[in-house]
Amino acid sequence: MKIAIYGYGNLGRGVELAARLSPDVETVGVFTRRAPESVKTLTGLPVYSTESLPDFKGKIDVLVICGGSATDLPHLTPSLAADFNVVDSFDTHAAIPEHFARVDAAAKENGTVALISGGWDPGLFSIARLYASAALPNGADYTFWGRGISQGHSDAIRRIDGVLDARQYTVPVDSALDAVRRGECPEFTTREKHKRECFVVAKEGADLARIESEIKNMPNYFADYDTSVTFISKEELTRDHSGMPHGGSVLRNGSTGLNGEHTHTVEFRLSLDSNPEFTGSVLVACARAVDRMSKRKNSGCITLFDVAPADLSPLSPEELRAHLL
Amino acid sequence: MKIAIYGYGNLGRGVELAARLSPDVETVGVFTRRAPESVKTLTGLPVYSTESLPDFKGKIDVLVICGGSATDLPHLTPSLAADFNVVDSFDTHAAIPEHFARVDAAAKENGTVALISGGWDPGLFSIARLYASAALPNGADYTFWGRGISQGHSDAIRRIDGVLDARQYTVPVDSALDAVRRGECPEFTTREKHKRECFVVAKEGADLARIESEIKNMPNYFADYDTSVTFISKEELTRDHSGMPHGGSVLRNGSTGLNGEHTHTVEFRLSLDSNPEFTGSVLVACARAVDRMSKRKNSGCITLFDVAPADLSPLSPEELRAHLL
Repeated sequence: MKIAIYGYGNLGRGVELAARLSPDVETVGVFTRRAPESVKTLTGLPVYSTESLPDFKGKIDVLVICGGSATDLPHLTPSLAADFNVVDSFDTHAAIPEHFARVDAAAKENGTVALISGGWDPGLFSIARLYASAALPNGADYTFWGRGISQGHSDAIRRIDGVLDARQYTVPVDSALDAVRRGECPEFTTREKHKRECFVVAKEGADLARIESEIKNMPNYFADYDTSVTFISKEELTRDHSGMPHGGSVLRNGSTGLNGEHTHTVEFRLSLDSNPEFTGSVLVACARAVDRMSKRKNSGCITLFDVAPADLSPLSPEELRAHLL
Repeated sequence: MKIAIYGYGNLGRGVELAARLSPDVETVGVFTRRAPESVKTLTGLPVYSTESLPDFKGKIDVLVICGGSATDLPHLTPSLAADFNVVDSFDTHAAIPEHFARVDAAAKENGTVALISGGWDPGLFSIARLYASAALPNGADYTFWGRGISQGHSDAIRRIDGVLDARQYTVPVDSALDAVRRGECPEFTTREKHKRECFVVAKEGADLARIESEIKNMPNYFADYDTSVTFISKEELTRDHSGMPHGGSVLRNGSTGLNGEHTHTVEFRLSLDSNPEFTGSVLVACARAVDRMSKRKNSGCITLFDVAPADLSPLSPEELRAHLL
């Protein structure tokens, strides 16, 4: 099975590294909107201009689109789905129905399969929510994120006057997580579920008190959370905060019994050293499923909800039943 | 969608109670091999003799078979799959390929859909193993069971001379579970992963030391584990140990990166107040998927590996994408 990578940022590199771990996957190359000669891949994959993509029609089983959800994917995925089977990691939850409809129209018209919103949230977390709610119709869902780097919140801090660089960690509140794990179903305020830890490199002579206050009072991003701000040096930031860890837990507490007297807790938890590498790994598994579904003459837009788990695995149905069931 | 329950033990009651939580599911009744008038259902469901099953052909969308894996299901599931779409919870892991082949032949010949090995292990745990290994091809799997009642081990104690009644809890060893949760990949001996806690009611005048020694030295069941034996009264057993809790964790630690430098942990955890009620709940969701796949003209034997998650949920694809993705 031949895949190619469209876009070569953190996620594109994650897909490149993940694909090497699957012997059934061959990566044809990376397609970039930059000058190809300016891009060096981690593993020596060839780099092509996106303008040469039409030449590769029929030579790529699945194109893995590694673009941003804000501005890239809304037009890229429908447009690329006209010529290729594609996978993306569209993660603007509220805009998924609209994105699905546009991609579905393009894929159905051209007989391709397009999987959107692959990854872990949306993705594996979504599936965990679905299985848990199907098993426990009478219950309550909780999602906790972190401890992990939020790119959006880090960017928001960087835009503040006097800030040189910053990293923001989203951190679940232990007592809230523990209560849900014990089977309780509390209603949480935003502040009760997550806190935000900010590590900030200020420009020389900047007003630290003002920066801290601007962060803590920023609406939507920080004002509704208990937020800590720690000023560190550029060296400390590089040394201690250059990774991209993330993760979190999806939980559902549900009850069964003649009078709802029995409580059950389902938890799906991820602890990830590298968010883009894990996301890339999931996208490679998604690409495998897309290739198989395309070869079975499916077409249209799908999500992981529509993929039988067996199609994600390199193992045969017989091997899966014998070893994983 | 109309289901019926074949066999009315703990699991059959679990299915009965679970089905009430799904408005799209109507339970036609319970079929028993006992005299129907001797069986009283928890919720007033009608009880029929299994001999009257042929009269219900065409009136039941899915028959949920609640029998034992040792002697019932190997012949029941293939035989019932000739006339009905069926779901079972066959859990003899080593015999799954053989069971699958027999059920598949019967279902394909008669155009029915038969889902085997539904529940949580095999079942949701199996799916968790599949998703985690598809996302992290380079890694190691761990399954910890408990804290929960093992029926087989409880029965083994009850067969000892001088024992009136007993309950055995399978308990994961905290330090082992913690090591895996930290991302380590140790190789464990049997003793290092689980311990066994036994609560025993002895007959008056029985030799307690001999009973304890017989338990602790029982090959396969206890000899390879750290086993504790606590003698209690019949009243204490009824008061403190009459529930059927269970659960456990499936974990996978896998690495990605240029040199495998990033570790990721995936954990799927269940904590269940009532093993049969949760298993029954999963079987009802499986029945929903079987009904849908049958209406799409599928036939043959399947497992949860072959079921797109969306088919387990009462929600429409649009609702799922809007609310759970």
